[in-house]
Amino acid sequence: MATDPSAAAMPLPEGPHDLRLDLGRRARIGMVEAIWGEHKSQDQIIAALRGLRRGGETALVTRLAPERLAPLLEALPSHGLDPAHYRHHGDARCLASDPLPTPDPGQEPLLILAGGSSDLTVAAEARLALACHGVAAELLLDVGVAGLHRLLDQLETLRRAPLLIACAGMEGALPTVVAGLLPQPVIGVPVSVGYGVSAGGQAALQGMLASCAPGLCVVNIDNGYGAAMAALRILRGSAAGGAGHSSA
Amino acid sequence: MATDPSAAAMPLPEGPHDLRLDLGRRARIGMVEAIWGEHKSQDQIIAALRGLRRGGETALVTRLAPERLAPLLEALPSHGLDPAHYRHHGDARCLASDPLPTPDPGQEPLLILAGGSSDLTVAAEARLALACHGVAAELLLDVGVAGLHRLLDQLETLRRAPLLIACAGMEGALPTVVAGLLPQPVIGVPVSVGYGVSAGGQAALQGMLASCAPGLCVVNIDNGYGAAMAALRILRGSAAGGAGHSSA
Amino acid sequence: MATDPSAAAMPLPEGPHDLRLDLGRRARIGMVEAIWGEHKSQDQIIAALRGLRRGGETALVTRLAPERLAPLLEALPSHGLDPAHYRHHGDARCLASDPLPTPDPGQEPLLILAGGSSDLTVAAEARLALACHGVAAELLLDVGVAGLHRLLDQLETLRRAPLLIACAGMEGALPTVVAGLLPQPVIGVPVSVGYGVSAGGQAALQGMLASCAPGLCVVNIDNGYGAAMAALRILRGSAAGGAGHSSA
Amino acid sequence: MATDPSAAAMPLPEGPHDLRLDLGRRARIGMVEAIWGEHKSQDQIIAALRGLRRGGETALVTRLAPERLAPLLEALPSHGLDPAHYRHHGDARCLASDPLPTPDPGQEPLLILAGGSSDLTVAAEARLALACHGVAAELLLDVGVAGLHRLLDQLETLRRAPLLIACAGMEGALPTVVAGLLPQPVIGVPVSVGYGVSAGGQAALQGMLASCAPGLCVVNIDNGYGAAMAALRILRGSAAGGAGHSSA
Amino acid sequence: MATDPSAAAMPLPEGPHDLRLDLGRRARIGMVEAIWGEHKSQDQIIAALRGLRRGGETALVTRLAPERLAPLLEALPSHGLDPAHYRHHGDARCLASDPLPTPDPGQEPLLILAGGSSDLTVAAEARLALACHGVAAELLLDVGVAGLHRLLDQLETLRRAPLLIACAGMEGALPTVVAGLLPQPVIGVPVSVGYGVSAGGQAALQGMLASCAPGLCVVNIDNGYGAAMAALRILRGSAAGGAGHSSA
Amino acid sequence: MATDPSAAAMPLPEGPHDLRLDLGRRARIGMVEAIWGEHKSQDQIIAALRGLRRGGETALVTRLAPERLAPLLEALPSHGLDPAHYRHHGDARCLASDPLPTPDPGQEPLLILAGGSSDLTVAAEARLALACHGVAAELLLDVGVAGLHRLLDQLETLRRAPLLIACAGMEGALPTVVAGLLPQPVIGVPVSVGYGVSAGGQAALQGMLASCAPGLCVVNIDNGYGAAMAALRILRGSAAGGAGHSSA
Amino acid sequence: MATDPSAAAMPLPEGPHDLRLDLGRRARIGMVEAIWGEHKSQDQIIAALRGLRRGGETALVTRLAPERLAPLLEALPSHGLDPAHYRHHGDARCLASDPLPTPDPGQEPLLILAGGSSDLTVAAEARLALACHGVAAELLLDVGVAGLHRLLDQLETLRRAPLLIACAGMEGALPTVVAGLLPQPVIGVPVSVGYGVSAGGQAALQGMLASCAPGLCVVNIDNGYGAAMAALRILRGSAAGGAGHSSA
Amino acid sequence: MATDPSAAAMPLPEGPHDLRLDLGRRARIGMVEAIWGEHKSQDQIIAALRGLRRGGETALVTRLAPERLAPLLEALPSHGLDPAHYRHHGDARCLASDPLPTPDPGQEPLLILAGGSSDLTVAAEARLALACHGVAAELLLDVGVAGLHRLLDQLETLRRAPLLIACAGMEGALPTVVAGLLPQPVIGVPVSVGYGVSAGGQAALQGMLASCAPGLCVVNIDNGYGAAMAALRILRGSAAGGAGHSSA
Repeated sequence: MATDPSAAAMPLPEGPHDLRLDLGRRARIGMVEAIWGEHKSQDQIIAALRGLRRGGETALVTRLAPERLAPLLEALPSHGLDPAHYRHHGDARCLASDPLPTPDPGQEPLLILAGGSSDLTVAAEARLALACHGVAAELLLDVGVAGLHRLLDQLETLRRAPLLIACAGMEGALPTVVAGLLPQPVIGVPVSVGYGVSAGGQAALQGMLASCAPGLCVVNIDNGYGAAMAALRILRGSAAGGAGHSSA
Repeated sequence: MATDPSAAAMPLPEGPHDLRLDLGRRARIGMVEAIWGEHKSQDQIIAALRGLRRGGETALVTRLAPERLAPLLEALPSHGLDPAHYRHHGDARCLASDPLPTPDPGQEPLLILAGGSSDLTVAAEARLALACHGVAAELLLDVGVAGLHRLLDQLETLRRAPLLIACAGMEGALPTVVAGLLPQPVIGVPVSVGYGVSAGGQAALQGMLASCAPGLCVVNIDNGYGAAMAALRILRGSAAGGAGHSSA
Repeated sequence: MATDPSAAAMPLPEGPHDLRLDLGRRARIGMVEAIWGEHKSQDQIIAALRGLRRGGETALVTRLAPERLAPLLEALPSHGLDPAHYRHHGDARCLASDPLPTPDPGQEPLLILAGGSSDLTVAAEARLALACHGVAAELLLDVGVAGLHRLLDQLETLRRAPLLIACAGMEGALPTVVAGLLPQPVIGVPVSVGYGVSAGGQAALQGMLASCAPGLCVVNIDNGYGAAMAALRILRGSAAGGAGHSSA
Repeated sequence: MATDPSAAAMPLPEGPHDLRLDLGRRARIGMVEAIWGEHKSQDQIIAALRGLRRGGETALVTRLAPERLAPLLEALPSHGLDPAHYRHHGDARCLASDPLPTPDPGQEPLLILAGGSSDLTVAAEARLALACHGVAAELLLDVGVAGLHRLLDQLETLRRAPLLIACAGMEGALPTVVAGLLPQPVIGVPVSVGYGVSAGGQAALQGMLASCAPGLCVVNIDNGYGAAMAALRILRGSAAGGAGHSSA
Repeated sequence: MATDPSAAAMPLPEGPHDLRLDLGRRARIGMVEAIWGEHKSQDQIIAALRGLRRGGETALVTRLAPERLAPLLEALPSHGLDPAHYRHHGDARCLASDPLPTPDPGQEPLLILAGGSSDLTVAAEARLALACHGVAAELLLDVGVAGLHRLLDQLETLRRAPLLIACAGMEGALPTVVAGLLPQPVIGVPVSVGYGVSAGGQAALQGMLASCAPGLCVVNIDNGYGAAMAALRILRGSAAGGAGHSSA
Repeated sequence: MATDPSAAAMPLPEGPHDLRLDLGRRARIGMVEAIWGEHKSQDQIIAALRGLRRGGETALVTRLAPERLAPLLEALPSHGLDPAHYRHHGDARCLASDPLPTPDPGQEPLLILAGGSSDLTVAAEARLALACHGVAAELLLDVGVAGLHRLLDQLETLRRAPLLIACAGMEGALPTVVAGLLPQPVIGVPVSVGYGVSAGGQAALQGMLASCAPGLCVVNIDNGYGAAMAALRILRGSAAGGAGHSSA
Repeated sequence: MATDPSAAAMPLPEGPHDLRLDLGRRARIGMVEAIWGEHKSQDQIIAALRGLRRGGETALVTRLAPERLAPLLEALPSHGLDPAHYRHHGDARCLASDPLPTPDPGQEPLLILAGGSSDLTVAAEARLALACHGVAAELLLDVGVAGLHRLLDQLETLRRAPLLIACAGMEGALPTVVAGLLPQPVIGVPVSVGYGVSAGGQAALQGMLASCAPGLCVVNIDNGYGAAMAALRILRGSAAGGAGHSSA
Repeated sequence: MATDPSAAAMPLPEGPHDLRLDLGRRARIGMVEAIWGEHKSQDQIIAALRGLRRGGETALVTRLAPERLAPLLEALPSHGLDPAHYRHHGDARCLASDPLPTPDPGQEPLLILAGGSSDLTVAAEARLALACHGVAAELLLDVGVAGLHRLLDQLETLRRAPLLIACAGMEGALPTVVAGLLPQPVIGVPVSVGYGVSAGGQAALQGMLASCAPGLCVVNIDNGYGAAMAALRILRGSAAGGAGHSSA
């Protein structure tokens, strides 16, 4: 009896072509396709890394559980990939190409705020996803609204940023307060830390959507990557002076 | 065929005794039983008013839809009740005994905050329920966190109050911000104004329960009466200097 | 017995000052405070209109049920307000100042897409809220994904817009498809049309948040006004060339 | 003290008869009863396999966690079952009889689409369940709507299939787009990949049920087996030219 | 001041072209676009009716509240439409073209079952939507599972139908029992009758999705139209002998 | 154009036979089929009443909105039904045959408890449904747990009843307390009175299901009829001394 | 530093008295207090076993995870308890006193039905809880409604039982079908087997509560113990001929 | 390739200053900031402990999974922290400074009630959090409402306490019964023990919010810490005789 998964009765096609990687995404919408690691097998991740390398694209594997890292790195060489071309970002639970593009030095970094240090993983994923596209961002942690002065003390820093990404779990009030104070685009990212009614980030998500502060945008719970891509869409329009999108 | 409801085949017992009013509530827990008007027939409300009058108790009918007021007042005299003994409080959608007990002049009024003027009904119900027990309270409206300065400008007023009731719909962040700034007891009341995810007050409720501010207490959505009774429990202990409850 | 609401036992303070209108909002974040009409009494709406007029601000009353319009207009003169200064926008269920600011002729209008003609009210609210801030927008209806060609036929039009607001009820797939095709900022607005699982807009909301298209931003269900304000935040940064926000 | 489960005080009856296997299912509705492995003990699974073998029926054990495979195979011989009669399908997390019936060579294979490679397990379960009934199907992965061209490029392939099963997690828009483009029966299978609002597949499920594309059918989340059986019902009617079901 | 909705500041384009009717839907997927009447204004409905008439298409307006019928019919002539070309189907709450296409006499009618007479509206909508496409269907009411014999007595009738649509509210067990007894395609339609946990049809929907009967397909709550279109997709494939879809 | 509902294009079969009334229900399970009035048209109700009369069965129409009563009674004679044979029970919102069967004088009445007078409708529906089957029951209102003494004072009365039906809205704690104090069968009926989290009866339902008191049974929210039928099943077994059910 | 839990700064009182075991429960309501093992520490379980032994009561520990059994048995002797006085029931995941009371030979056993063999644990817990109180019950597995004949074949067996407990996961239709066929008391127990919408047993629970079969009673998901206690309440009344409860 | 998390490409700032500990919280609201251990890395916890020590503040780490304790203690010395300054409280799953402040001997201890011994962790967390602020509390376990006498027997003890914290899982009725009997402030804490509908504590939470007992306050599920801080706010106002808060 054949019990090896690779000997399945109806084998899947292999290799990057069959994965149907969206290599045209950069030309179409100015972004690279990230590899969402959570539900993929190691073989699927490696096939994607190979496809991206062949296509000359930056690689970003998100939501890679720490215990999956070592076996993945070990397996790379036998598939023709060099571990030295990748770097693990433990704070963000991601693997990414190394080196990453150099950010434009003339661009003011955007700011990623987080209510507590428990929100770090999500904030770091957002920062890394931006770095993969050559955009610099700074983190500002522990500015939750339970101690409002910590946020108000940083108001000058906030005012300088072209865009604010605000990550928060629990009741998720941080982006609401920020959007009430400042005129820039604010992207709220609910974070799944919490317990009871805030477990899973639902209370934070609903709080951000229901916000009384006008013009707050929201992405899915824990979606640091998505917030970064939304920021990218906004900043590129901004860099073009509102006159259109040359990459389109 | 008998179609009149009062001629039901299996008639209910009538009168205050049969209503089983909890006239011992004041002696037991220091409160009067409010008559929740929403799901009661006019006959049930009048029977309760009669029972309270016989027992010498203050009456408070809550959640009385405006269109029910006129027929109710018209019907009172034929049941031996004098409309002049009651007063309609349109802002709170309540009917209450008139006059109400005189508040203790030495007691600093507690403060009832509301994020927006749409929260007025709930805030006013809380104030009236306190007034029915001889406790004074002041309303402070339109201090929602979308314009934080409106709240911060009132900080001295807030600091003087022995207790704060904070009503908010939408994302319900107001009590969180208040409890992060001040040391007094804070009771959050979610309000069912809003639309989409905030419709019905669920987002506000979850935001208050999930609050990152320590020691925020919450009552049911729109439960101005309940917040008032919780305040009463707290203030009486306070008046007694923490040494016990003489009314128990 | 006093049953008139205006004769409440504990009267509320009156007039625009007491409403605590956020007249500093334009200076702070570049927006005027809209008056959310749904849960406000006529007296509260009129007080807000008076306050805005005294402050020299544009007025926008949203979610004004059609049957409330006539009595409101009738009441204006007795409060010193001239009905000719306002205009009813039936498609958006709003009342707004008339005339509105002239849009900047050099600015490419942004585009508001809607899946079906049932989404019109929300799309029109977004367009009007932008118009109140001097920003032009065009509507493109009936481009739902059940007939994809209707959307693909308009691709050149979509490409020209600096920002896309996509309104959709039912399964809410429109913004996902749009964000997969185009590089600009895309703001998804779930609409509460539908029945069964899509009643109330929850399916559309979750579909937009869960979107596989990277960088899609979402606002609350039916929140055309909020989408407009988010667009305003983005476009202003864009107009400033990403160099900061002079209005801050 | 007796702690061995098999020595329970009130023993259960043993053997295939007592399991009350539905061996008449093929005659009644043209399907074999699959053994849902997730909540069954190894003893229960083996008893079912024995019963099916005695009845001369094809066996399909679904949702068999990988770590349960080895002990199960080891235990088969001591219960009179030959491991060589079964084959493990690692991609589908299933164990099935080996060999399976030969598909009808004259029948055009149906098509199973999946938005991403994370949906593979569900798609493979559907393909295997069809194979157990002698129906051929092909998989087409990575055709999610975030890169619409990947789907549009395959339109000719899609047009040839007599029926389409579309598996998708996240927002689940794939079946909607497919059903808007093509006239064949389309069965949507929500997949439980995702995070935040899409965790567990609820967003995909609701998106498919709320679909604006007419005539899209839906099965339970992750129910590849159910989609296959629905396809079987449809294809058999089709083969019979709509004139009835001879197997009934 | 302009308060007439038709004098909106930013007028919508008018006429069938601007409605972007999906007139190619019949050629593409073999169906006409139904007009979902619930959230549309009378003007929007009439514009759609005009567009369909110009395109020579059958019209079907669903979910038309009874009180909207008379004003709609009155308004038709002034828009160049003849009321005699339409017929009201009170049982289905629909307006449709009159006459409808003649059904193919050689086709065995499909069967629409309903648990109780409260499910009639949904069942009738399904039958009418099929009739609009020239497909005959018969209704079989009051065969709910609380009196199983009522269903078992009709087993021969059920066996003759090429496809079964089973509508049920409450716990929605009817399609499960039917799909366990018969081999044909079964489409379950949850109905929003019920109270408590079954209010809105959620219990029926979940019961059908969770069904232990293999191969049961489900559509949205109350979606009689959708069930009909799914049946149409199936029957056409069936009529073509499984060899493809000539209409594609 | 035909707009009269009774002239529908595809007419439904008429009369009691076509309604498929479950007239065998009394022989099978000892109950009559109640007519759930909420979602039925007047014609459907009358057809059911006629069918029951022909079958010599007791009629019970539940959830009959008060405003529907007069037109229904007026219409009866023209369908050959005498209004004098029915009686309206306003407290229960039901219409029932008149007279009802005489209860067995030797049977101790069962007891229906309700937390507040707002629960009366549900409690009265249960009592009437029992009366339709010749079983006597007494109501005991206003014994909610907020004033526990009101319940404890009645403990002797409770102890005498062969079975207790406990109706409660809000948090629904009444059946839990009762089942903790007494050994008889206790059936909990959640009631949909309340607001905020208790609106619709969900909090009460969940509280009863989650009860820490052992052996509490629960029926659907507001399902007084269902509680009565459950009681009937229990009492008949009881009357038979546990030796079986002669009516089966 | 003290890290041993038993050296906690504020030690809990020890021993059976402090556990406040409800040893009067048998006298009050005729049941013994079961020890719910899931959230209790081993020390808490042992303390409860000791208290029950001192009180001469039968012990039943439910929801004891298999891996907790061995350490618990090992620890018993050092607390003065003899492992030979207990028996592990692996099918029910319970530990119980051994021997259990002898059932009354004159009492017809009640019947516990289960839709599939995955429901065994819950059904076995119900049987064991009854056995702890001297009541005999028989299990009938695999009678799910997907193969209705398996149930109909057993109708005579079902008719003999004085009471039916029906356990079902998935859509939970089994108790509905049973209650529609038979006149005895039927207690539905939703089981948490399933996936997607049926995961956790919610679909089954709602299906049972929403049941169209009259008089079906429901207990919490997986609550085999609770169903047994409800049966005990019913059977004792039955044994007493409906004349009251001598144990009260 | 760099895989060490501490070598992340974009390093986070280190040390207590960067953690932005809210060391002003005691001066502002009279509380120390607790370290919520659940989602924090060991490095984050140690950094917080160091910051608190430097600030001279009491440390309380909550929700510290037992298996995390040993590695944390081992790591302390290498970061300049002495394990002897901390104490593990196994019952509460917390680590706290040792010694804790001496409680005021003149203050009557408040009372923490729990329905069952499964609620111990939450009750113990509340007691410890109070002890960290110099407030004494006593635990009273196993007073659930299924055996009401266990509570009623302790009524004198309850009457003496200045404030009651009532923890309960399952249906959560304990605080309702307590608040109906006694006049003091009552804080309800829902506990996440239970299964089926009570799993996660949602049923208990909703039951407490929906309570019919007036003036019951509620905190988030399992939030023993939050209940303690709410009690602290109340007791301090009480100690000050209601005359204001000197610490503000």
